[in-house]
Amino acid sequence: MNIVKIGGNIVDNEDALHLFLSTIAQQSPCIIVHGGGKVATEIANKLGVESVMVEGRRITDKNTLEIATMVYGGLINKKIVAILQSFNTNAIGMTGADANCIVAKKRPVKDIDYGYVGDIEQVHTEFLISCLRQNITPVMASLTHDKKGSLLNTNADTIAAQIAMAMAKTENTRLVYCFEKNGVLADANDNESVIRTLNAQTYNELLLSGAIHKGMKPKLENAFLAKKSGVHKVFICHADSVHQPEQGTEIL
Amino acid sequence: MNIVKIGGNIVDNEDALHLFLSTIAQQSPCIIVHGGGKVATEIANKLGVESVMVEGRRITDKNTLEIATMVYGGLINKKIVAILQSFNTNAIGMTGADANCIVAKKRPVKDIDYGYVGDIEQVHTEFLISCLRQNITPVMASLTHDKKGSLLNTNADTIAAQIAMAMAKTENTRLVYCFEKNGVLADANDNESVIRTLNAQTYNELLLSGAIHKGMKPKLENAFLAKKSGVHKVFICHADSVHQPEQGTEIL
Repeated sequence: MNIVKIGGNIVDNEDALHLFLSTIAQQSPCIIVHGGGKVATEIANKLGVESVMVEGRRITDKNTLEIATMVYGGLINKKIVAILQSFNTNAIGMTGADANCIVAKKRPVKDIDYGYVGDIEQVHTEFLISCLRQNITPVMASLTHDKKGSLLNTNADTIAAQIAMAMAKTENTRLVYCFEKNGVLADANDNESVIRTLNAQTYNELLLSGAIHKGMKPKLENAFLAKKSGVHKVFICHADSVHQPEQGTEIL
Repeated sequence: MNIVKIGGNIVDNEDALHLFLSTIAQQSPCIIVHGGGKVATEIANKLGVESVMVEGRRITDKNTLEIATMVYGGLINKKIVAILQSFNTNAIGMTGADANCIVAKKRPVKDIDYGYVGDIEQVHTEFLISCLRQNITPVMASLTHDKKGSLLNTNADTIAAQIAMAMAKTENTRLVYCFEKNGVLADANDNESVIRTLNAQTYNELLLSGAIHKGMKPKLENAFLAKKSGVHKVFICHADSVHQPEQGTEIL
């Protein structure tokens, strides 16, 4: 059971996306998770909706949620599905609201009001497993829902980790984070400085020493949580290596 | 087996949509088909994309297709799913690309170049039936795909008719077109002048006499085609009567 998360930089680049999906097509059925990329920001700008980011997370007001629903749940999600279909890979685009797959709770307001951001409460895997059994690849946009009628914006790395954790209860599960770098880098400016394996202790040391780029923190924390929670294999690698994720960083 | 098509006027009206979906929730699982409404036009205007209509059909250039994908496949589709989930009705939002349900061919250019508009070639019902067996209501946006990587815009009335026709091969099938009028009207200005039953001969006479509003033609032709092609029951009624479609017009 493969859960593969695609980063925004791949989603933004038509050629990179095609190449990536043609590789994924050979590993299907699997579960693909994707977020946004620059398109959401561009469309928000055109519609006159301002994007506010705090600590790398988008603040989601009502208008921003609608744009996320349109761009992640519509434009990008269906583009991925249509491309996969052209490779004879049957796929179905989804959000966490679809088939009630991912139920979340609107994040409580403390210091920051994140708006319509959802913290995942429950992942229902039955429908995903039913799709995989029918040889259909679920393609999940980074949206969840509150079961009260509202969609919620949830980080795509978190969704990938939580799906993998739920799947790992019954299946041998591998989680692969694909992005535009070769893996977790010892030197953020040197794409060849891939750390082959990373355990929690080394990660904390590298974080304290400042070696690991701050922007990697949410992804790595999700990766470690998944590994600790029973996901059998967790990798962070370049999108071009999705068929050989061991070329990137393995999380131990 | 119920296939229910919702008109744009219901989709546009938050209260009407909630009311309609709360009624539908009691008949689920069924298959819901929806189109756009004014939202797509509003967003197109804001993004500076012009909507061109010819004979009641939208001309779909690349930008318009992207807006349709965002608004029909994203915003409206996921809103319907999230509302149904709040009524404890499990639902899954789809386009024709999802699970390869509806394959279409880009309409050949003759007098008019419709752009990215799809004429349906094949409806694959297995996945829809699998959803219904799992007690999940498929919610279909009015988009198909060409199996070559592109989505296509297809009229929602046509999609509803074609799904019903494909379903009718194996299931006892009822097709209900819901909109903002009480049914097919003998006098377009009198909502009480509902024609209770309509056969092809009477339809042609009324059409020639000018009694039937021109805008009803595509819907009625789809309805008659469905009935002729083996769909067991076909109705056109007010959205508020979706639980009692015989209050509207039955197509014979």
